[in-house]
Amino acid sequence: MKFIDQLKNRWAAADSMLCVGLDPNPERFPEPVRGKSDATYEFCRRIVDATAEYVCAFKPQFAYFAALRELGALERIVGYIHEKHPGIPVILDSKRGDIGSTARAYAKESFEVYGADAVTLSPYMGFDTVEPYLEYEDRGVFILCRTSNPGGRDIEMLQAGERKVFEHVAAFAAGPWNTNGEMGVVVGATFPEELGVVRVIAPSIPFLVPGIGAQGGDINAAVRAGLSSDGWGMVINSSRAVIYAGIGPDFDLAAARAAQKTRDAIREAKAATLSAHP
Amino acid sequence: MKFIDQLKNRWAAADSMLCVGLDPNPERFPEPVRGKSDATYEFCRRIVDATAEYVCAFKPQFAYFAALRELGALERIVGYIHEKHPGIPVILDSKRGDIGSTARAYAKESFEVYGADAVTLSPYMGFDTVEPYLEYEDRGVFILCRTSNPGGRDIEMLQAGERKVFEHVAAFAAGPWNTNGEMGVVVGATFPEELGVVRVIAPSIPFLVPGIGAQGGDINAAVRAGLSSDGWGMVINSSRAVIYAGIGPDFDLAAARAAQKTRDAIREAKAATLSAHP
Repeated sequence: MKFIDQLKNRWAAADSMLCVGLDPNPERFPEPVRGKSDATYEFCRRIVDATAEYVCAFKPQFAYFAALRELGALERIVGYIHEKHPGIPVILDSKRGDIGSTARAYAKESFEVYGADAVTLSPYMGFDTVEPYLEYEDRGVFILCRTSNPGGRDIEMLQAGERKVFEHVAAFAAGPWNTNGEMGVVVGATFPEELGVVRVIAPSIPFLVPGIGAQGGDINAAVRAGLSSDGWGMVINSSRAVIYAGIGPDFDLAAARAAQKTRDAIREAKAATLSAHP
Repeated sequence: MKFIDQLKNRWAAADSMLCVGLDPNPERFPEPVRGKSDATYEFCRRIVDATAEYVCAFKPQFAYFAALRELGALERIVGYIHEKHPGIPVILDSKRGDIGSTARAYAKESFEVYGADAVTLSPYMGFDTVEPYLEYEDRGVFILCRTSNPGGRDIEMLQAGERKVFEHVAAFAAGPWNTNGEMGVVVGATFPEELGVVRVIAPSIPFLVPGIGAQGGDINAAVRAGLSSDGWGMVINSSRAVIYAGIGPDFDLAAARAAQKTRDAIREAKAATLSAHP
């Protein structure tokens, strides 16, 4: 099944646009897994099981696993999600950006080694960066567009002709680059105004939206700006605020409650938006 | 020792601005290592030993090792270079681009797990992307600026005010972003005119220059455009044209000859440039 169809099915089946990010950091591991052998995998596995019913996707962050020399755990947790929670897409957040044979190697890494359903990519080097990923017809890509960090302004906000750089990227991703209909963009929740600008340029593609929770983005403003015309269109990520919600023996229950609460807040924001603009 | 000093010392000691890229691809492995256990590491080790005397740096490409599930071999080959060929800096080409705690995890991965002396980074998300790497005071970063691929024009060549996007990046890397004096840029040999533009904006920082050899860039034009005022300033990469120069039992000798020839061509281009503009 195509990634985009898998995502649409899951939005509807779970009635959720929440994505839980897997950012394993041993310094923040809760007591029951801290210091245990295989702690990285076990932590992620328990978070996945506890939060699966509330999510439309999981997003493991490559960097955390890599810095811990735990890429084996990354491969296993993606496999675990596919096996135990089929229908929930996995977005590997690695923000790759390279070209030609190197990009092909990265696509192979993402989709064949780790088994991800979609990846994040940097657009800086242009369409050549994206093309090898499109050859995997059932997988998706999210192109960095307007990111949630302050430094996002350095390049993304440069005015280039009638459009800012991030608007050019949105237009590429909604148009000429999106040859297989599996492309989305990354747009931070911390800049709802620009989120709305991207939605105008790209009316129907999915948005991966970081920046709520620990980064302080407002769910209501983000949903109001980013909802697509069919009432979906957003994969709203929360990592730390969910996965480190508890540090005791019931850390997984705390994560489940945080995920449920965030999912509900997104639902309510969506209902409010749709009732204001039916 | 600071990366930039290590690089300057090596330029002078080896009288070379050639960098050999380590892009292990089992389909192209020569007969003596093909199909052997530990082939990836053994291939790289023999290439390193054969070409070390001709190079100012080695540049392993993360993607190839990752796609082969051979990140252990990457770690070992970097350690091997440091142990057997001290003084030759290792530039890990991974083109990371993320922020905050994720960027710190990538910096840790690059510098602590793999032991690289410098890395390549994408500037799309802005200064936050770069900052965590600068905390490692003795390590270097090369920021993607004007890359050697056709799609480089999609974003890099957008006109933003008086400068194109890649010129903005060059100005950041030569100025406000370069807080520790350890920053360089990636500028492809395939666009010598833009290489010269970047040299005007950034007169003294090192350039990592892909695109000669298999990608067809002209060494003479690149050196003429990119040499810094002290007669160095370039790390000119060749990967496939060197490492796959031979496929038989003497593949390492073939690689050595290709490296020597390329180093000599760079030397001659430099001498011609300096004699034309003494």
